[in-house]
Amino acid sequence: MATAPSVSYSMTVRLEVPASGTAVSQLTTAVESSGGSVTGLDVTASGHEKLRIDVTIAATSTAHADEIVGKLRGIEGVVLGKVSDRTFLMHLGGKIEMASKHPIRNRDDLSMVYTPGVARVCTAIAENPEDARRLTIKRNSVAVVTDGSAVLGLGNIGPKAALPVMEGKAALFKRFAGIDAWPICLDTQDTDAIVEIVRAIAPGFAGINLEDISAPRCFEIEARLREALDIPVFHDDQHGTAIVVLAALTNALRVVNKATGDVRVVMSGAGAAGTAILKLLLAAGVKHAVVADIHGVVHAGRDDLGEPDSALRWIADNTNPDGVTGTLKEAVAGADVFIGVSAPDVLDGDDVAAMADDAIVFALANPDPEVDPATARRTAAVVATGRSDFPNQINNVLVFPGVFRGLLDAQSRTVNTEMMLAAAAALADVVTDDELNPNYIIPSVFNDKVAGAVAGAVRDAAKAAGVTVSAPTTI
Amino acid sequence: MATAPSVSYSMTVRLEVPASGTAVSQLTTAVESSGGSVTGLDVTASGHEKLRIDVTIAATSTAHADEIVGKLRGIEGVVLGKVSDRTFLMHLGGKIEMASKHPIRNRDDLSMVYTPGVARVCTAIAENPEDARRLTIKRNSVAVVTDGSAVLGLGNIGPKAALPVMEGKAALFKRFAGIDAWPICLDTQDTDAIVEIVRAIAPGFAGINLEDISAPRCFEIEARLREALDIPVFHDDQHGTAIVVLAALTNALRVVNKATGDVRVVMSGAGAAGTAILKLLLAAGVKHAVVADIHGVVHAGRDDLGEPDSALRWIADNTNPDGVTGTLKEAVAGADVFIGVSAPDVLDGDDVAAMADDAIVFALANPDPEVDPATARRTAAVVATGRSDFPNQINNVLVFPGVFRGLLDAQSRTVNTEMMLAAAAALADVVTDDELNPNYIIPSVFNDKVAGAVAGAVRDAAKAAGVTVSAPTTI
Repeated sequence: MATAPSVSYSMTVRLEVPASGTAVSQLTTAVESSGGSVTGLDVTASGHEKLRIDVTIAATSTAHADEIVGKLRGIEGVVLGKVSDRTFLMHLGGKIEMASKHPIRNRDDLSMVYTPGVARVCTAIAENPEDARRLTIKRNSVAVVTDGSAVLGLGNIGPKAALPVMEGKAALFKRFAGIDAWPICLDTQDTDAIVEIVRAIAPGFAGINLEDISAPRCFEIEARLREALDIPVFHDDQHGTAIVVLAALTNALRVVNKATGDVRVVMSGAGAAGTAILKLLLAAGVKHAVVADIHGVVHAGRDDLGEPDSALRWIADNTNPDGVTGTLKEAVAGADVFIGVSAPDVLDGDDVAAMADDAIVFALANPDPEVDPATARRTAAVVATGRSDFPNQINNVLVFPGVFRGLLDAQSRTVNTEMMLAAAAALADVVTDDELNPNYIIPSVFNDKVAGAVAGAVRDAAKAAGVTVSAPTTI
Repeated sequence: MATAPSVSYSMTVRLEVPASGTAVSQLTTAVESSGGSVTGLDVTASGHEKLRIDVTIAATSTAHADEIVGKLRGIEGVVLGKVSDRTFLMHLGGKIEMASKHPIRNRDDLSMVYTPGVARVCTAIAENPEDARRLTIKRNSVAVVTDGSAVLGLGNIGPKAALPVMEGKAALFKRFAGIDAWPICLDTQDTDAIVEIVRAIAPGFAGINLEDISAPRCFEIEARLREALDIPVFHDDQHGTAIVVLAALTNALRVVNKATGDVRVVMSGAGAAGTAILKLLLAAGVKHAVVADIHGVVHAGRDDLGEPDSALRWIADNTNPDGVTGTLKEAVAGADVFIGVSAPDVLDGDDVAAMADDAIVFALANPDPEVDPATARRTAAVVATGRSDFPNQINNVLVFPGVFRGLLDAQSRTVNTEMMLAAAAALADVVTDDELNPNYIIPSVFNDKVAGAVAGAVRDAAKAAGVTVSAPTTI
């Protein structure tokens, strides 16, 4: 599977080249013959003898970028200057900041923003704590909490290395839903400690977004925090993914005209995302689900299911009504839907061809899917991946901003399955009947209807569930 | 002591008044005869019969504001509309927000700010954790941490009610030093828990500002966190106050031409601020210090000094070389300097008159000082308070932004007494010999030289102490 040059491996190379001769024209040739792509070429200084040129180049990987730089260096007469990595430049000093909503120009401003005026506001909240949702940042603030134990596909890289992801998440919260999120990266991976810490920092936030915490600790941490707190706690890796998958599946079934309760679903992966997807699919009415992990199909007869309350045993007890055993590949034969949240290349084209007619394949392992999507598309009716360079990208950005916007607008004390089902339905409905086709089952992350639709559905579901804070008093 | 109308008790009152007659002219008269001040009068709608007028009024207290509104209601023909409290309006939804530094306009932006591009940045930090200070918000971020146990003069009002103060603090960090601070309000007042929580959230911050945590817990929390963390931990109520006081005292001594090592200093108050002021004064060379608390002068013979490691016993062991006993008033007689961080009206004019010639009085209890500053000024050479409506305001805003700016710029791992002495000296030096006089021993908080001067001194002191992170590698 070839990868296209990407701006996420983009660099700007400063070069000095002779003003005459063919060096300039050789630059683009050198980049493109290496498989890179010139996305910009600026002459930043010019003289009789020499030119200084900044060439911006998209590569496919770090190694590829190095290779291209080597080619440029090899052109006769070219002197290589600074090589700037655009992604790293964008990260210098971090991607987010704190901003004051009011100017502090003089003593009067100071006396209202800070002492002595602020004391009256504090007193008002002390007398009526719910006023914190009206008179402070709490109303619109979300903590993005990680322990750095399962960051992207990079694994347990720790809290500092996780920070760029959390900053990016905060930036997306603002961009897509106007939410003020701040990263909280924890220097502990102890379940009890994490629960205690998040519980303690909650007063200043109206929601907790757990992020990149490894399974199975993430299940217990989320469950205990939901129990302890009066604000919603949402592990995006689980539920954000589950909601997008359900929305995409809903629309894929619209495309092939099959009913949720009838289809046979086979899943690969029983981690945090897989478990959450499974539970939401069951709640949405899926009746025939089979899950495979690295040891094959999960069934009640397996002797490696762990404790009575383990996630794996829950899967065995709640799926596979026909008692299927064997390998993933065996289970996939004849299935209507495959959903992979596991590892690259666990299926091949023959496996997809052996599925039922009008098969649906969601191969979400990233960056390398469970099956090559182009290959799958030869026989499957609908294919989706986690990648941005194929149609039908399953991307949590479609969900978490709107979900939290809805929760915050409703001043919800929790988040529950009904709200997630509502979010998935709203997201699916953004794609109209006229727009729906096998290559468009899910809208783009830049579709400006998405966040509002999801937020509205979640807000209404929260209000219907009666779990919102009563309307605050007015001034 | 009369209090002037203040913008921090400012309201806007909407009124309907008859277009003819004297009602309009009566409005201002009614406000001013009540002791309020009209700071704005806008006609927002006008007709043949009636005018709609928004009157903005400064009062001296909430009760006073209510009284003025009552007077306005009493004017014949006037219909009272909405009364808006300007300070509360400014707090609606909170005073700070999160902002993204980069626009996210399209797929390319997304792939650099977030996945997949962000993964390379995470990997770089995982390989070299110090890069977090270069490639993330850590470099410029400070956590403003409170447990809400000692908020302003309001006492133990809890974490939610403390939030407006912490937001204001964050706004001031940005305004005066460009620092990104975020409030962390803790729902626990257990010392061990607070230490554990702050230790755990530290990876995303380059400094911890402890705020409004009650004594004596604040001493232990700060000491243990300084031991545990590789970023500076600074309890502003202690050290911010101490630094401003030392700077003000330095300049007051310049005014009266007395030497630090010669003066007799009497302090009232042995809480967090008092203890920190004392320690910094001793470090600065004060030799004759006596501290009184609510039970009188602290001396080694008192039987209420507590544990061997108590703050009070430390004071007894390190002050009062002449073994003075008795009351505060007795101790003040003949003293060169009085510093109060305690309670209103513990001294009167006679007590100040009984001090040495060219006495210096810092009466910092807020809003009501230890002695009326106008009375004190009759015999004392220099008087300072914590109030904004008298000369020589001792205000932490002069210190904490610059101190943290210096610590962050130096990438300091800690903050120590040398840095605080340097900060105080730099703050004092902002007042030139030409500017110095009894009513100007300390610059205004809006003096734009202050933060830079303090920051530079702290940065240099940190580098001199060898406690800074080694220069990061470049891209």
